[in-house]
Amino acid sequence: MNNIAIRLMYDGTQYHGWQMQKEMQTVQGTLEEALSRVCGHNVKVSGCGRTDAGVHAETYCANFKTQSRIPPDRLPLAVNSLLPPDIAVQSAVIAPDGFDANLSCIKKEYTYRIFNAKIRNPFYSKRTHFYPKALDIPAMKKAAAHFVGTHDFAAVRSVGTETKTTVRTVHWYEVESIGGMVELRACANGFLYNMARAMAGTLLYVSEGKITPDDLPNLLELRDRSLTGPTVPPHGLYLTRIWYAGQVGEMMGSL
Amino acid sequence: MNNIAIRLMYDGTQYHGWQMQKEMQTVQGTLEEALSRVCGHNVKVSGCGRTDAGVHAETYCANFKTQSRIPPDRLPLAVNSLLPPDIAVQSAVIAPDGFDANLSCIKKEYTYRIFNAKIRNPFYSKRTHFYPKALDIPAMKKAAAHFVGTHDFAAVRSVGTETKTTVRTVHWYEVESIGGMVELRACANGFLYNMARAMAGTLLYVSEGKITPDDLPNLLELRDRSLTGPTVPPHGLYLTRIWYAGQVGEMMGSL
Repeated sequence: MNNIAIRLMYDGTQYHGWQMQKEMQTVQGTLEEALSRVCGHNVKVSGCGRTDAGVHAETYCANFKTQSRIPPDRLPLAVNSLLPPDIAVQSAVIAPDGFDANLSCIKKEYTYRIFNAKIRNPFYSKRTHFYPKALDIPAMKKAAAHFVGTHDFAAVRSVGTETKTTVRTVHWYEVESIGGMVELRACANGFLYNMARAMAGTLLYVSEGKITPDDLPNLLELRDRSLTGPTVPPHGLYLTRIWYAGQVGEMMGSL
Repeated sequence: MNNIAIRLMYDGTQYHGWQMQKEMQTVQGTLEEALSRVCGHNVKVSGCGRTDAGVHAETYCANFKTQSRIPPDRLPLAVNSLLPPDIAVQSAVIAPDGFDANLSCIKKEYTYRIFNAKIRNPFYSKRTHFYPKALDIPAMKKAAAHFVGTHDFAAVRSVGTETKTTVRTVHWYEVESIGGMVELRACANGFLYNMARAMAGTLLYVSEGKITPDDLPNLLELRDRSLTGPTVPPHGLYLTRIWYAGQVGEMMGSL
């Protein structure tokens, strides 16, 4: 049995998220169907994380076990010919037996994209969060700096998924504005349920003056989700980078 | 009665082109419905041209007559709140009585976008033509230069729309490759039916070595559609610029 790791990209608009759900179109289900046809047996993939309905992945990692002898470099074209246009396998590699796309992940970066203009742009409609009010970028940067480090992030997550601890380490949180496009890039060793979207919503609260940048440390300490900003819509969110050790890391462009 | 000119933008993926057709969802029909609600009477719009099903517009001009006293600068937000996310009015202005978006148009630019990479990108799937073979950009540039000038373009149009003459003036035809994205930008005083897509397909023929750049003058002279390249898919095509005189020209950013 080979353990194959694949790098993929998907536009999440048409899917009920990554994870398999009965009767629902998911990225995992769609991918397993195509891989099963290529490999000639039922394939079960393990993904690097659950993305919600409407969330996109510029890069995503999954692995699966197969007896098939298809060379990894020929896998992308073979699978892509069976996948719909909104999912594409970019590359594949034979991973060590113990590799697991979720458990082996060192850190991830999520990017939240905001189109900040007075009039909406049809080409961005399912790809960015349209926000017509002026943004206070310096205040958002100042607030974002408080996310960096090891903290309890219970104040910016939705309850619903089991987790042993709500402590995570945020390696960086960048706020960048180019033209009308604002990117919020958060890299962490792990993300709680809805954490990336609640952090983005909290920065919009800061921009709106509902909280100040210096309120952030106290708000995190209080662990009260009702005091921070809203969970912003999923279609602005992208998984943009994932880090692994070894050859899979090389394939993911993260080494 | 005011004659209002509007600048709009649309993602053509979900539409059967610009022009009204019975039982079909078109950009014109969708826009007229929203404008009629804002103006309080039946509105009939006149567009700068027919775009085919799946073709996009980064910029498009239409005009309509109305008794409504709504100030033009308030029109975009009012109409956009009633339009689906894939169409947006960008600005509006009171035009001279004789202005007609189609008849007053001086010239137009269409851009054909090709995503030239080995593996497809889900985010470009309905927005560019995916072309995995290597492109001979210098040969395409050399061939494109023969389109420039006043010629009979019968060899690169589809029969189907009435036209007095198949002679048109192409002001420029630029071929630009940045990373994996290739843009073919054609500016002309008018485009025959499918002309932009047939010219793009003919340049792909040149890249594939099926015809040489120097065959182009002769091929145009022969006026035989079967000797030039295919009509490439609509989803790579964008209306990118339109030129008018006066205040409408200013609004369209073309003066």
